[in-house]
Amino acid sequence: MSTPRPLLLTMGDAAGIGPELIALLYRDHPALAARCVVAGDAACLQRANACVGSTLVPTPLVDLVAWSPRPGCLPLVQATPAAVPPAWGRISASAGRAAADCITWATRRALAGEAAAVVTAPIHKEALAAAGVPYPGHTEMLQALAAEHLGRPVSQLPVRMMLANNELKTVLVSIHVSLREAIEAVTQANVLSTLRITAAHWARVGLPPPRIAVAGLNPHAGEGGLFGREEIEVIAPAIAQARSEGLDVSGPHAPDTVFMRAREGAFDVVLAMYHDQGLIPVKYLGLAHGVNVTLGLPLVRTSPDHGTAFDLAGTGRADPASFLAAVALAAQMSGQALTS
Amino acid sequence: MSTPRPLLLTMGDAAGIGPELIALLYRDHPALAARCVVAGDAACLQRANACVGSTLVPTPLVDLVAWSPRPGCLPLVQATPAAVPPAWGRISASAGRAAADCITWATRRALAGEAAAVVTAPIHKEALAAAGVPYPGHTEMLQALAAEHLGRPVSQLPVRMMLANNELKTVLVSIHVSLREAIEAVTQANVLSTLRITAAHWARVGLPPPRIAVAGLNPHAGEGGLFGREEIEVIAPAIAQARSEGLDVSGPHAPDTVFMRAREGAFDVVLAMYHDQGLIPVKYLGLAHGVNVTLGLPLVRTSPDHGTAFDLAGTGRADPASFLAAVALAAQMSGQALTS
Repeated sequence: MSTPRPLLLTMGDAAGIGPELIALLYRDHPALAARCVVAGDAACLQRANACVGSTLVPTPLVDLVAWSPRPGCLPLVQATPAAVPPAWGRISASAGRAAADCITWATRRALAGEAAAVVTAPIHKEALAAAGVPYPGHTEMLQALAAEHLGRPVSQLPVRMMLANNELKTVLVSIHVSLREAIEAVTQANVLSTLRITAAHWARVGLPPPRIAVAGLNPHAGEGGLFGREEIEVIAPAIAQARSEGLDVSGPHAPDTVFMRAREGAFDVVLAMYHDQGLIPVKYLGLAHGVNVTLGLPLVRTSPDHGTAFDLAGTGRADPASFLAAVALAAQMSGQALTS
Repeated sequence: MSTPRPLLLTMGDAAGIGPELIALLYRDHPALAARCVVAGDAACLQRANACVGSTLVPTPLVDLVAWSPRPGCLPLVQATPAAVPPAWGRISASAGRAAADCITWATRRALAGEAAAVVTAPIHKEALAAAGVPYPGHTEMLQALAAEHLGRPVSQLPVRMMLANNELKTVLVSIHVSLREAIEAVTQANVLSTLRITAAHWARVGLPPPRIAVAGLNPHAGEGGLFGREEIEVIAPAIAQARSEGLDVSGPHAPDTVFMRAREGAFDVVLAMYHDQGLIPVKYLGLAHGVNVTLGLPLVRTSPDHGTAFDLAGTGRADPASFLAAVALAAQMSGQALTS
């Protein structure tokens, strides 16, 4: 067995709840935490430990090669210049810059094969912008860093968002566009690309090929063309092409029952044609355990399904469930699932 | 207290599972069944009783005025000319005609105030068409009969579908149209009409005014116009108008969390902007207990959320859960909820 590689946790915007979530992981889940290394700022993590009543002290780590799992220890790479921690709950360019530094450092280490996965704590888009970071969020930053690493234009590195909880996994053809634009984005090329990216992710993390269900766009998946023709003209041809490439794909299925069927075990993952089609069922049973996974990158990246929660930062009352689920899923996808 | 009025159960297409569902209700749920009268054909019900091993015999009833609740009895109005029951699982004009006769009879009695509600067992659209019935389904028939009763054109009697289970109620602005057409149907007039119809239904069945949540059309309800402007230009003005009329309405809410919040008790009912937005969450936890309710009619009408299941007809293996839920909800909406 090869030496295990760590999961890298980026601390996120240190004016938000990211550092506390990490502190709670180390305080309450030592076995899972033992697989992790924090990319952050020592003073910010120290403050977070204090705020959740943890007596742990970050242990400086310079080189990931020197890392091995040690329960009861909080190994931290100082991935940004040491500075005074920002005020809780305030947008600042310095916190945005520090967050971006940590993401850049962790992503590069993962791309170099030195880390098993990256789990990103929440950042604040306005702080990022204030720092002059030319990306609106994590996904675009990771995409740019990966494209640079591969020597490819970003346009040739399409990514997709997967939302996962214990019961359901769904990959979205499009995300933050209007429903009208989302319909336009349901093209044969986009559906096929989503299918390929999904299958490639399962292969990357060493799982058997997934049973992929494709949702239709229209009610009853168009009912044979009666309520829309996208299923016939766009989605079915993409499915046929994917099947000819050996993928285990079925559909287009009636959207109103395919997620229920996946929850009951009929499929491993559902391709959703637009944001709310996939997110309504994933979130229906509660938000606590939802995890974002970015597919299409040459690395494993997960994140909690919430923001910086500036209003809660520093109170120690943030709910770490989604962040813990993101760490656990990253561990699982890295072939380092824990039995406990 | 006034004399209770019965719930009328239409037998549906007798080649399908409708009569069996009724037989199972009387066999296994005598207290609930005691509130009901069947509008059907005696021979079809007799055959259904035999097929589920029930020894009950339909008791002929001519006039609803003569009815009173009697457990252990299966009162039946011969609402269509007596005939040989149709073959199980086969489309026939005679079964379509009989089904339509029962619906017409029951609806007229309910419109005349002689019944508390109508619960319709499934019909088959092709059998209805074969019988020359000029309506594609229940809703259109009920709408036409109600319009006739009121002396109004059908166009002035807009109806909406509500889907309900134990955890969630959702009313749909549109149903069986393509997603593109559904977006076009999100007009201020349609949203406002849906709000008024929803509130009127709660008033009709004697419940306190509902807390209505309106879902947005776009991801994050448009995020302030960033992902679509329907929330700003269409939905919010309709909500404002409804509030000025005294309705308890909030929104537009982010579609991906509003159903979860309603399930947790924040709202009594969610207005969904299109078919799958509402039906995905209602069906996510399973189909068994979903009930259709037609809103906008001057009567209470519920139905199970499934079809005739021709493949199961006559086997006695049909799952009556949705039909039972439809009867129970009709009883509840008629102020005749049972405590047991």
